[in-house]
Amino acid sequence: MNASSPFFSMKERYFDDLKVGDRFQSEPFEVAGKTIIEFAEKFDPQKFHLNAKSAERSIFKGLIASGWHTAAITMRLFVKTLNFAEGAIGLGVDELRWPNPVRPGDALQVETEILEARSSRSKPNYGIIRLRNVTTNQRGEIVQTMTAAAMVPRRGQRDY
Amino acid sequence: MNASSPFFSMKERYFDDLKVGDRFQSEPFEVAGKTIIEFAEKFDPQKFHLNAKSAERSIFKGLIASGWHTAAITMRLFVKTLNFAEGAIGLGVDELRWPNPVRPGDALQVETEILEARSSRSKPNYGIIRLRNVTTNQRGEIVQTMTAAAMVPRRGQRDY
Repeated sequence: MNASSPFFSMKERYFDDLKVGDRFQSEPFEVAGKTIIEFAEKFDPQKFHLNAKSAERSIFKGLIASGWHTAAITMRLFVKTLNFAEGAIGLGVDELRWPNPVRPGDALQVETEILEARSSRSKPNYGIIRLRNVTTNQRGEIVQTMTAAAMVPRRGQRDY
Repeated sequence: MNASSPFFSMKERYFDDLKVGDRFQSEPFEVAGKTIIEFAEKFDPQKFHLNAKSAERSIFKGLIASGWHTAAITMRLFVKTLNFAEGAIGLGVDELRWPNPVRPGDALQVETEILEARSSRSKPNYGIIRLRNVTTNQRGEIVQTMTAAAMVPRRGQRDY
């Protein structure tokens, strides 16, 4: 983090800054059709993610983003919103669901709620948080839900 | 799918081709350090994913891939191995874990096991499968585990 970063003025967070019940709302992020196709070509080459024409003939009646693309965008928004000073180490994810598809031009936003916050038993310089991320589109429809656990450094503990 | 596809000669699968206990092993896929950084810049901008130098000073003592990158690579290998004729629609993922980090040059492979296979109650042209994907590196260390549910078309049912 330095003066050239767009996040220079944002608060950097440590485990100590979080408590159960805290909620955070990300900025919106627009998903271009081109990036849906690029992601699919690399990681999820199925016809409803790859090509608008063949996607028309699928159950979705048009191009939709891979669920893993939605998950990756959600991570981006989560990381930028929470702005952990020393990062957050993902331990695991549960109940990852995609109740509605993401389509070209959709603007996604993530709401994060802290569900648990406790000390790490094995690593005293870290805390463990459990959180819920809900990703919605510009119409307020939920496109992804998940819970996750992550290990987050405590303030003033850089010698981990 | 056509003659120009590298998968022309591979068997295309429908729901009807799968049964509980079936196992599939993917080809290996090498993870270049460059792609770890590219993915991180787009989706998971944290220092242990972004830059080899700053990653040296992290708990991982070197660059590691975002867990979401590992998940996306796993999807690629799963899709290419199972080769569903009409795609597989992800319904949800549980117990996604990353027990060991993925580092530049690692060669990942995915083993898929079919845990359940049943008819869809709401969509008679589809079946629902539940599966477990285990992703390992070239040393046989497990880098990701997950279970997933997906909706897969039945053979001869293209009018969905």
